[in-house]
Amino acid sequence: MTLMRSWIDSANTPDCPFPLNNLPYGVFSTPGAQPRCGVAIGDQVLDVAGMEKAGLLRISDTALLQSGVWNPLMEAGPAMWEKLRSALLGHLSDASSTQDQVAQYLHPLSGVTMHMPFRVSEYTDFYAGKNHAFNVGTMFRGPENALPPNWLHIPIGYNGRASSVVVSGTGVRRPWGQLKGPQDDAPRFAPCARFDLELEMGAIVGKPSSGPVTVAEADDMIFGYVLLNDWSARDIQAWEYQPLGPFQAKATATTISPWIVTKPALAPFRASTPPREKPLLPYLEEPRPMLYDIDLSVELTPEGGQATEIARTNYKEMYYSSAQQLAHHTTSGCPMRVGDLLGSGTISGETKESRGSLLELSWGGKEPVALEGGATRNFLEDGDTLTLKGACHGDGYTIGFGDCTGMVLPALSDPFAR
Amino acid sequence: MTLMRSWIDSANTPDCPFPLNNLPYGVFSTPGAQPRCGVAIGDQVLDVAGMEKAGLLRISDTALLQSGVWNPLMEAGPAMWEKLRSALLGHLSDASSTQDQVAQYLHPLSGVTMHMPFRVSEYTDFYAGKNHAFNVGTMFRGPENALPPNWLHIPIGYNGRASSVVVSGTGVRRPWGQLKGPQDDAPRFAPCARFDLELEMGAIVGKPSSGPVTVAEADDMIFGYVLLNDWSARDIQAWEYQPLGPFQAKATATTISPWIVTKPALAPFRASTPPREKPLLPYLEEPRPMLYDIDLSVELTPEGGQATEIARTNYKEMYYSSAQQLAHHTTSGCPMRVGDLLGSGTISGETKESRGSLLELSWGGKEPVALEGGATRNFLEDGDTLTLKGACHGDGYTIGFGDCTGMVLPALSDPFAR
Repeated sequence: MTLMRSWIDSANTPDCPFPLNNLPYGVFSTPGAQPRCGVAIGDQVLDVAGMEKAGLLRISDTALLQSGVWNPLMEAGPAMWEKLRSALLGHLSDASSTQDQVAQYLHPLSGVTMHMPFRVSEYTDFYAGKNHAFNVGTMFRGPENALPPNWLHIPIGYNGRASSVVVSGTGVRRPWGQLKGPQDDAPRFAPCARFDLELEMGAIVGKPSSGPVTVAEADDMIFGYVLLNDWSARDIQAWEYQPLGPFQAKATATTISPWIVTKPALAPFRASTPPREKPLLPYLEEPRPMLYDIDLSVELTPEGGQATEIARTNYKEMYYSSAQQLAHHTTSGCPMRVGDLLGSGTISGETKESRGSLLELSWGGKEPVALEGGATRNFLEDGDTLTLKGACHGDGYTIGFGDCTGMVLPALSDPFAR
Repeated sequence: MTLMRSWIDSANTPDCPFPLNNLPYGVFSTPGAQPRCGVAIGDQVLDVAGMEKAGLLRISDTALLQSGVWNPLMEAGPAMWEKLRSALLGHLSDASSTQDQVAQYLHPLSGVTMHMPFRVSEYTDFYAGKNHAFNVGTMFRGPENALPPNWLHIPIGYNGRASSVVVSGTGVRRPWGQLKGPQDDAPRFAPCARFDLELEMGAIVGKPSSGPVTVAEADDMIFGYVLLNDWSARDIQAWEYQPLGPFQAKATATTISPWIVTKPALAPFRASTPPREKPLLPYLEEPRPMLYDIDLSVELTPEGGQATEIARTNYKEMYYSSAQQLAHHTTSGCPMRVGDLLGSGTISGETKESRGSLLELSWGGKEPVALEGGATRNFLEDGDTLTLKGACHGDGYTIGFGDCTGMVLPALSDPFAR
């Protein structure tokens, strides 16, 4: 696959995140107007809600792009997903005959505000990166018990809180919670002192299921992917997580990037999961590669300071793909719905610089991370802005995700004051 | 509080579950008609959606009862909740002047089908019964580690799957999952062999929050209560639950009773939580009693066989109330939404007969439970029907919940066959 050329010049450069090959789906607003569905192309966003209303996108008899979220398109099913992409490729390719009409629906990306691209039905977070699981397990339980006995057999996951998922750019308030040090007799209620990020990918379920599905069927159910930061309160987590798993430690916020990058855009970058260390049960075997080669990085910028890239890794590092996770999710008969969001789990590589959380980068606070300008970090400080970036690098083109950012706001001085 | 008399005679007997004091909210259908909002009174259901449409319930300028679920009334806020209850008390009391008009909207309960009374936003399940936590902890981790160190400080909870919540009467298919015995080298994928119930109460959040709330505020946010059976696959759970908690073991189904019993109906039955064994952090202290004195029981009926009452307990047995659980749920800033459902955790008393799960009743399969007619049970068998019952016993009247039932259907022979 090489660059597909558009009549929008800014989309035709090798490092533009939004070439014609990409066409990611977001929800944007211009000053004074309601949020509406848009597609990124070059340095512009195309108001596809406006185009549908004007009769320029005749893909369905019923309106699919008028609700301010992408759920109705997802609900219309894969044939309609394909129909919209084909129509957009026609309108935006350099051979398009509709340039003049379409040009009226373009807005510079620099002038729009982005909103949640879809309504999250339920949110599940996995723990499917082996290096991350080993690192965290070592710190929480010691190296001999680091990887739980089930880890090489099950894509371990837990249910998170859909209500806490926010779009890139939303400030994230440092939470309060129960904290108890190993020497303390009793817990105290205080602001989190070990607030952290987790670098993940998010897969969006676009097709529902009502019983167990195969890995191939699960892959077909996925509509697209976003970057995902699973903010984590490590001190709250350490005290609360036994025996039923993380709860309030993960409920403050989960930030996603604003653009849903769809499977057709990612198709040339499919990658295999790493070799299995133990054979998988047949229901988890992948019939074809279902991970993706996506370069990922994390930047930390203190308030008023410079950005430092604190981690660089790749989505290929995962031990389980989203399709495997989704197939496992349905084994019990658990119904999956349009808008369900699956976090991949933290993506850490084998080297120190490729670890996707401060917990791992600072090894539980023992090895402070050096920032540009001389500061260090064990965990996040108030005013820190985190920026997750992701891109697939093709032959003369890039598939970008758009930044996934969030600034840490100071804890409330009295959480119960009104 | 004594019996409030209605002009509907069947509502005036001491053991009627639905006297005028109760007025629980459900969603019903008659043959050939759409599901609609109704209120149980005596042996009748009152079609309040029809009454609102006809202008007989003028509580709001906008329709609140026309969507086939009770969420819009909840969203309208506590003042409106009170307004509807007052209007219904007026129409249905024996001093009512609207009997002739209202009588047209009554349908015999025996002829209607019940549906989900509300749209579940998210579902959280707690672990707040001390006897249950101790019993299960003893079986999973031994008596010395039975109660985790955090248990007396935190209402331990985990997020469940809203998509799996079903109304009483829905068949529940025995799930498949990964099973691994202590002697097995590797797991196998097979139907669950230790399928179980959990006797719980469910609290329904009727008012949203966007930051931490006090226990008193949390109590005000609760709209009402249902009976709840948290179906549990014990063999799947034992293998999957470390380190991030139960996932597929709890995702097959959670059954709720069809009638939402509101707080005003339960108010005379408020009860205190038991004495604290360790002091609670101030944010969890209750300003007034927030549990309820609700007698609960479980009946097991094999296919074609007789019913056996296998457990009898009371909601007062809980160590934490729903208000305490909800307050804890918000500490991290986790946004709560209208329609969130909180499972209390399994309600077990101190005696053997008062244990709310077969896991505890059969002590992990070692002490089979005897049924009427000579059969025994360690765990559920295909064709078994479980019926949870709940009632508050007042002075000459009863507040009933309506049965919460479900039959175990056999596992699919091939879960991936289409």
